[in-house]
Amino acid sequence: MPAAYDDNNIFARILRGEIPAHKVYEDDATIVIMDAMPQSKGHALVIPKQKSRNLIDASPAALAAALSAAQKIAKASMKAFAADGVMLVQYNEAPAGQSVFHLHFHVIPRYEGAPLKGHGGPMEENAVLAAHAAAIKSALG
Amino acid sequence: MPAAYDDNNIFARILRGEIPAHKVYEDDATIVIMDAMPQSKGHALVIPKQKSRNLIDASPAALAAALSAAQKIAKASMKAFAADGVMLVQYNEAPAGQSVFHLHFHVIPRYEGAPLKGHGGPMEENAVLAAHAAAIKSALG
Repeated sequence: MPAAYDDNNIFARILRGEIPAHKVYEDDATIVIMDAMPQSKGHALVIPKQKSRNLIDASPAALAAALSAAQKIAKASMKAFAADGVMLVQYNEAPAGQSVFHLHFHVIPRYEGAPLKGHGGPMEENAVLAAHAAAIKSALG
Repeated sequence: MPAAYDDNNIFARILRGEIPAHKVYEDDATIVIMDAMPQSKGHALVIPKQKSRNLIDASPAALAAALSAAQKIAKASMKAFAADGVMLVQYNEAPAGQSVFHLHFHVIPRYEGAPLKGHGGPMEENAVLAAHAAAIKSALG
C-alpha cells in the first residue's frame, strides 16, 4: 500500500504559499504551475488542491477537475508555443517515476523532431519560466 | 488544429465489436482493454466510448469517467501483478506519440529496476494478454 500523505511535500508547500512558483492557472480545485525542470518548452504541472498522494487515493472530483484544467492547459500551450503535440503523464510511486508525493499531472508540449529531456533534469532559469507562464496565460485568454 | 475524428480508427472498430480485444472492464462511458503491444506486464488502455480524437476535443464527462476507470485499473493492476508503481500516459497528435486517433489513456504498471519497453513495440501473444486481462478482472473483484 502507498505510504501516507506527507504535508511537507513541495507541492503542499507551494499550495500553502510557502514556496514561490510560476503559476499559470487557478480555479477552486486546481492550480497549474510551470515545472521548474522542464522536459520541453512549456512543461506545466496540474496540481489538485485536495491532498492525495497520487492517482491511487485521489477523489473522483479532484481527478475530474484536474483533467478539465489539463485540457485547458494542453490547448493553450499548443497555441502559445506552436507545439506539434502534447503529452499528459502522471506517475504513481517512485519506481514509476514519482518524485513529489502530491498528485500531479505533467502537461508536456512536444515539438516535431525534438526529443524529450529527462524527468527531473536541470533547473530552468526563472526568467524563462516566467516568460513561458505568461505565454500560456495569454493563450488561456 | 487537430484533424477530424476518423470513424475507422482501430479503437472505434473495437468499440463497435468489429475487431476483438482483451477487455478487462466496461461501464456506460468507458472500456478498458489490454494493449496488444505492452510496454510492461499488464499494460492496459482506458478508452472512452464517446468519439474524440484526443484530450483536446474530449468532453469533461468522458474525461472524468476515463480517469475514474483509470484509477480502478491502476489499483487493480498493482494488486494483480504486485507492481511497484503505475504510469498514466496520454498522447496527443503524432509528434507526441499518438498512433491511434481515438482518445485513450495508457495505464502501465512499473516494476522496480525494469525499464519500459518502447511504445508500439512487438505484439504480445494472445494467451499472455488473456491471462493478464483475467488477472486484472479478478483484482477488480
